[in-house]
Amino acid sequence: MAGGGDELKLLGMWASPYVLRVKFALSLKGLSYEYVEEDLMNKSDLLLSSNPVNKKVPVLIHNGKPVCESQVILQYLDEAFPGAGATLLPADPHERAVARFWAAFNDDTLVEASQAASWGKTEEERAEGEKKVVEALEKMEVGLRECSKGKPFFGGDTVGYLDVVLGGFLAWVRATDVMRGVKRFDPATTPLLAAWAERFVELDAAKAVMPDMDKMIEFGKVLQARAAAATN
Amino acid sequence: MAGGGDELKLLGMWASPYVLRVKFALSLKGLSYEYVEEDLMNKSDLLLSSNPVNKKVPVLIHNGKPVCESQVILQYLDEAFPGAGATLLPADPHERAVARFWAAFNDDTLVEASQAASWGKTEEERAEGEKKVVEALEKMEVGLRECSKGKPFFGGDTVGYLDVVLGGFLAWVRATDVMRGVKRFDPATTPLLAAWAERFVELDAAKAVMPDMDKMIEFGKVLQARAAAATN
Repeated sequence: MAGGGDELKLLGMWASPYVLRVKFALSLKGLSYEYVEEDLMNKSDLLLSSNPVNKKVPVLIHNGKPVCESQVILQYLDEAFPGAGATLLPADPHERAVARFWAAFNDDTLVEASQAASWGKTEEERAEGEKKVVEALEKMEVGLRECSKGKPFFGGDTVGYLDVVLGGFLAWVRATDVMRGVKRFDPATTPLLAAWAERFVELDAAKAVMPDMDKMIEFGKVLQARAAAATN
Repeated sequence: MAGGGDELKLLGMWASPYVLRVKFALSLKGLSYEYVEEDLMNKSDLLLSSNPVNKKVPVLIHNGKPVCESQVILQYLDEAFPGAGATLLPADPHERAVARFWAAFNDDTLVEASQAASWGKTEEERAEGEKKVVEALEKMEVGLRECSKGKPFFGGDTVGYLDVVLGGFLAWVRATDVMRGVKRFDPATTPLLAAWAERFVELDAAKAVMPDMDKMIEFGKVLQARAAAATN
């Protein structure tokens, strides 16, 4: 599928930010692949056998060999397909380390705060989460300044590792902004991030992959109702 | 310090498993460095300015440029000093992905369970944590089989990325085993891991770096008392 006899299959779920980042990367690299939508309430035997430890999407299966965890997959794509389109991580070792640092910050700190803000059990937990999201985004604004050095993307002139890592969340950020009546990536507090987000969603690779916003909001409401039912 | 005009400084704390893994890597690579012990109750200006986001050790400062987060540092060492001693990650892209997957599993699942087992607020929380540690170690046993392919280390014939990542915790595992009267890395349930741990601590690079066990246990008791005081 990817050319040269390579066969790529992506096991995903349409709304998953982690799956979206892999889709962005495959799109940027111009790698063709078979996409398999998983029903996470009834996982396929292929998913369970490909990721027996975490049983989660995304899983990329390359010529029959599974690679699990989105950040691991992104680095795998750089390393297994060095000639294909965009390289996500920069060449310089220190710049690579800085990109990996902020990607870890995103997945540890920002994601955790966002989850608390959206799905916290009490209004107090959600408000506390929202406060932490704002703090984390202010730090990420510093990260964007550090990585982009005045250029349009975290990766500089072109989209790189951190663009894809953070970009995977943009659909959820926008949907939950609408649901919660807030605005993250606010030009008033994080002007660089706000401008970055506008640029990212206009990319061809992003447009090709971003899920429909109404569908995201609808799905967000289902999850919210499910979370509320679990609390009561 | 590292040769060729390179100056390496490691900001650390003697008992930190994350610092220990960096020390193991520097030791395996034969890179010389200046070690600076941090007082985490009174962090140095150098630490705060080098890692303003997380304010945590380890930080590796290479020719004045800081690199933060232990797994990021390990990969940086491979990439910035490709000729120095052992290379931690394997050359093959899929084997690299597998090593990164299990390293993430270690830091996400196993560490979280271990922290709950040691510092959980109630006896119930600690027992639940201990149960999850056992489950995580059984999975890690599978990881060791997958990575080592019958050879002595996760890295095969020689110590690699995952050996260093997991090896950093061995001192704490042994100290908290004594404190809690349990035995993790038990030959009865995880024979490969148990044998691996015995081999790892006998390595020259490990012996050069492993902290004194009595001192670890003493420090563990201090932390335990502090955790108990915070709960009451």
